[in-house]
Amino acid sequence: MKSLAVKKQHAEPKTAIVLLSGGLDSTTTLALAQEAGFKCYALSFDYGQRHRVELHAARRVARKLGVAEHVIMKMDLCVFGGSALTSGLPVPKDRPLGEMGRGIPVTYVPARNTIFLAFALAFAEVKSCGDIFIGVNALDYSGYPDCRPEFITAFERLARLATQAAVERKVRVRIHTPLIALSKAQIVSTAARLGVDFSLTHSCYDPPRRGWACGRCDACLLRRKGFAEAGVQDTIQYLE
Amino acid sequence: MKSLAVKKQHAEPKTAIVLLSGGLDSTTTLALAQEAGFKCYALSFDYGQRHRVELHAARRVARKLGVAEHVIMKMDLCVFGGSALTSGLPVPKDRPLGEMGRGIPVTYVPARNTIFLAFALAFAEVKSCGDIFIGVNALDYSGYPDCRPEFITAFERLARLATQAAVERKVRVRIHTPLIALSKAQIVSTAARLGVDFSLTHSCYDPPRRGWACGRCDACLLRRKGFAEAGVQDTIQYLE
Repeated sequence: MKSLAVKKQHAEPKTAIVLLSGGLDSTTTLALAQEAGFKCYALSFDYGQRHRVELHAARRVARKLGVAEHVIMKMDLCVFGGSALTSGLPVPKDRPLGEMGRGIPVTYVPARNTIFLAFALAFAEVKSCGDIFIGVNALDYSGYPDCRPEFITAFERLARLATQAAVERKVRVRIHTPLIALSKAQIVSTAARLGVDFSLTHSCYDPPRRGWACGRCDACLLRRKGFAEAGVQDTIQYLE
Repeated sequence: MKSLAVKKQHAEPKTAIVLLSGGLDSTTTLALAQEAGFKCYALSFDYGQRHRVELHAARRVARKLGVAEHVIMKMDLCVFGGSALTSGLPVPKDRPLGEMGRGIPVTYVPARNTIFLAFALAFAEVKSCGDIFIGVNALDYSGYPDCRPEFITAFERLARLATQAAVERKVRVRIHTPLIALSKAQIVSTAARLGVDFSLTHSCYDPPRRGWACGRCDACLLRRKGFAEAGVQDTIQYLE
């Protein structure tokens, strides 16, 4: 009987928390986590972002990919101000791609990934799991400090000291970043291989209206470049 | 002219973010930060705690101590469940004090201090400062993993990699924990020395009604013991 119980336990799928913005990167990350055999809980944030329409994309993706549960955490990052994504500052347009890696743009939201990962850690503890997936990318990234490998490693170290489950060694916290070393073109190719429906996703920082992307913000420019380089047809609609 | 400008800059007070729950510990921490010469921004959280009345205490304390600004961040930790402080689980009463340090109680909120410090870091970046005060206590603590010195050190390391200001070396993030090695009696004595008005503060996890403490939850028992040992008269009202 004992061996049967052990077998049964082993047959249970591994569980993971996946941070899901509804963009191409987090959608691809979710698809990769599922391919790796994880039963996934998706976590999104309604933080006062001007591109709040991405939450509709997150809902569509979560439904289509069949996550175990999709939690949208509401919080008001606007009370701090300080970013073009949460305040009235204009979103930069038509920036040369070579400029994006240099300096930190005004679309940076203070401590965003620290906050997002902290909530993912809370969710993971409640679900008794230690695996957290985040679609950060250090190559084609827009210059955000909290997308770098050293930041992720430091968070993993913190997380192993932070929770009841980790301290009692019931789980080992692992922050998975399957996209961290990929170019945008490689992400597009990976998504295409996994059969991701691109039309469900949303990347634009400054969407002119629902269902459309501006085509000119950093996020749009990076996405377009990725699809062009990968030789894959995007299926979202760009205004320009 | 240049030297005058430099002098003026030096005369500006140092700025800090102080996590303020409205309890005795965070109030004492705020008073200590002010004594050290910091201009303080207070940050509280409305996270679905059953002792939400502590937010009234936080507002009273912030006003009385004259902080530069008091931000209350609203978020719904209840969506994750998992703690007696945010769910319907009963709050333990009359636990022997010796038991509190052992194991992690059901009043533990998953990843709470990780989340709170992440928001403090965002606030600090917006205010262009690196000093964050948190009233954690590792001695008379209730058994929470995220109150230990090793957790705080790991967060400080993370924070120095996490934000634009830190990466550009415009600020050096420091997490101040002035109470971490103090007993509750020492905290009470410190608060008394600083002239803290105890009646403004709130500690109870399970307040029977506004303005009253139950007197029997872990927080009440620790507070009462601290005042008794310090030989100081508490000025809040206990039901029992």
